[in-house]
Amino acid sequence: MGLIVQKYGGTSVASLDKIKWVAGHVIRTKEKGNDVLVVVSAMAGETDKLVKLSLQLMDPPDERELDVVTSSGEQVSSGLLAMSIKALGHDALSLQGHQVRIVTDNAHSKAKIVRIDAERIKKALGKGKIVVVAGFQGVDEEGNVTTLGRGGSDLTAVALSAALNADSCELYKDDVDGIYTSDPGLVPAARKLDKISYEEMLELASLGSKVLQARAVEFAMKFGVTLHVRPTTKPDTEGTWVVEEEKMTQLENILISGVSSDKNQAKITITQVPDSPGIAAKIFTPLSESGIIVDMIVQNVSIEGHTDITFTVPRTDFKKSIILTEKVAKQLGAKNIISDDKIAKVSLVGVGMKTHSGVASRMFSTLAKEGINILMISTSEIKISCVVEEKYTELAVRALHDAFELGETK
Amino acid sequence: MGLIVQKYGGTSVASLDKIKWVAGHVIRTKEKGNDVLVVVSAMAGETDKLVKLSLQLMDPPDERELDVVTSSGEQVSSGLLAMSIKALGHDALSLQGHQVRIVTDNAHSKAKIVRIDAERIKKALGKGKIVVVAGFQGVDEEGNVTTLGRGGSDLTAVALSAALNADSCELYKDDVDGIYTSDPGLVPAARKLDKISYEEMLELASLGSKVLQARAVEFAMKFGVTLHVRPTTKPDTEGTWVVEEEKMTQLENILISGVSSDKNQAKITITQVPDSPGIAAKIFTPLSESGIIVDMIVQNVSIEGHTDITFTVPRTDFKKSIILTEKVAKQLGAKNIISDDKIAKVSLVGVGMKTHSGVASRMFSTLAKEGINILMISTSEIKISCVVEEKYTELAVRALHDAFELGETK
Repeated sequence: MGLIVQKYGGTSVASLDKIKWVAGHVIRTKEKGNDVLVVVSAMAGETDKLVKLSLQLMDPPDERELDVVTSSGEQVSSGLLAMSIKALGHDALSLQGHQVRIVTDNAHSKAKIVRIDAERIKKALGKGKIVVVAGFQGVDEEGNVTTLGRGGSDLTAVALSAALNADSCELYKDDVDGIYTSDPGLVPAARKLDKISYEEMLELASLGSKVLQARAVEFAMKFGVTLHVRPTTKPDTEGTWVVEEEKMTQLENILISGVSSDKNQAKITITQVPDSPGIAAKIFTPLSESGIIVDMIVQNVSIEGHTDITFTVPRTDFKKSIILTEKVAKQLGAKNIISDDKIAKVSLVGVGMKTHSGVASRMFSTLAKEGINILMISTSEIKISCVVEEKYTELAVRALHDAFELGETK
Repeated sequence: MGLIVQKYGGTSVASLDKIKWVAGHVIRTKEKGNDVLVVVSAMAGETDKLVKLSLQLMDPPDERELDVVTSSGEQVSSGLLAMSIKALGHDALSLQGHQVRIVTDNAHSKAKIVRIDAERIKKALGKGKIVVVAGFQGVDEEGNVTTLGRGGSDLTAVALSAALNADSCELYKDDVDGIYTSDPGLVPAARKLDKISYEEMLELASLGSKVLQARAVEFAMKFGVTLHVRPTTKPDTEGTWVVEEEKMTQLENILISGVSSDKNQAKITITQVPDSPGIAAKIFTPLSESGIIVDMIVQNVSIEGHTDITFTVPRTDFKKSIILTEKVAKQLGAKNIISDDKIAKVSLVGVGMKTHSGVASRMFSTLAKEGINILMISTSEIKISCVVEEKYTELAVRALHDAFELGETK
């Protein structure tokens, strides 16, 4: 009994039959005496299709207009799911971001939630309605449609769970049973985790594990929303709980929780920049003002007053980043720009890493043994990432999964 | 010089190449020194696809949710067109119904415009932006998304023209050069009209001529908005002007302006209703409260205190109408319900008809000569409509077009 938030991803609503199944599952939850708030993604493939159409007209696309176009996918699936629930005899109501309202800043395509007005949802739930909220969407103070970035429906679900003080936030996935030590498609020996800490999940999510959106996990950690990642295909089995680190005592002896990879990466190098104070700010301020998230930054040792700076950005921001960087490079009198979007980031994640040495060296030697050249390295307390050529991604992940014995106990 | 409203239908934005062409034409209009406000329909086929998806989940569909789903088509095309204009170097801004805001009543799927707030559009035009408004959509007082009915983008364009006191309202069509004496696909001899009165256009539109939405014409007549129906394919040629009847003097001698047909018709008969006062109100009030537009109504002579009542509704409202009518029929103690959605309405329209007799009889004898049985008849001052079996539609239209010599002068 209580308020249950359920989020269904794109593959879970990819067809009318799947939408009908979701409607049935939502109703079963409602009939157990719960209030149910559903957050839904666009039908699988829709967002990609809309982005592709847009890019054919304008590349890089105008981000305000791109949000108008892409947010339509969730609008459609929320309406269809509400109809499907009604067809099964329960009352339902779809709400878009501008109707809820989910107010965000105006950083189009990666907007941040500023506040949520939960009154309309509360009123509808109070009348016994099942509320279906279109994920991914928000609206800025002026009423412009915004979107929360790829995987943004997870964030919608988590933020609504926090705003409504929900008793449970269930994230249904069609393609996975829960969180694994690595991508099971890549590493057949990958093992499902029963629990994982926010921090580890965060590293895994930001490193390209497609299961949960990083910002959703951050938000959940900040507001203490316990997440339950569950398989749509086996709705009665437990998936993986994402919880606070303190609740992870049983995992103390585990060094590494997972290996992940991220191909949505591109790197840009500015060569022979005059090395003087404020250079980094001059390079990265225009990028950050355009809302581009720079991930890794490496600055080589300065030689004869000049240095090379390399950084990575999401591949989707590659062209825009080059345009901005070329402008700055000219102003700074740098020699030239070298860029490459055929790279990938491979990472090891684990809270156990904090108190154990030797993880980094074992990682580097494992990659070396496979003949994989490391292009960039960055580390945090619970993560080590290496950038490698894209073609080595799968090989690197499998080799590391083996080297750290993450597979099922044989 | 001035404010030009241009509306592009679904076939005019059916592909990315067509959207690019529209962007170019809009820019040419802007570069002549005009302010330009564009209204755009969904890409051809999209609305049908979305309705089909919805009907597979719920039939009849929940109309609030159907509006959520179908309005997404215009959202996508408005964003794409704005991007395409920006890609060509002009500033553009897309606006949805809820952003403009175009406030309507809450009669979902056939909402009526209550008021338009033109401030945001004026501000954007003042900054030199080309404004692209998603057609077909509105929003009710509570912020629920509504739609204006099939062809509703025409109404959006006309209503915005009136609200902004536009100098011109151009309705671009991809599939026709203007208004014809009949459907040229059906009647090869059909002739393009240079001018037509609101009244005639209204009869043609409401009779299923797909060129303009009836309510858009009504609105234009009420607010004196002169319409110019123009071919997208030949943007420099004149199409057909829709004007006040007084401006039609040169057409005095023309008896009939056109023949049209409408297959979006279904008929329902309630047999042996006890004939007492208030019966009609009891039958038609539930239909009108559900927003169903009943078109023709025929009540046969009462026999032994009982009568049969037949009426037609749009085919899309057929199932809903039967459910409502069955309920009333039971209450009234009627014998049973006979229904048929394999019918069509064929009509003759012309202001000249007012002052000429013999049109009706010539129509009936023409149909008789072709062996076409007339199922229902209704007449107005400038129109005669006959319901016939659907399979005779094309034959009836061609025979009438010939009989009234509407073709090109040979």
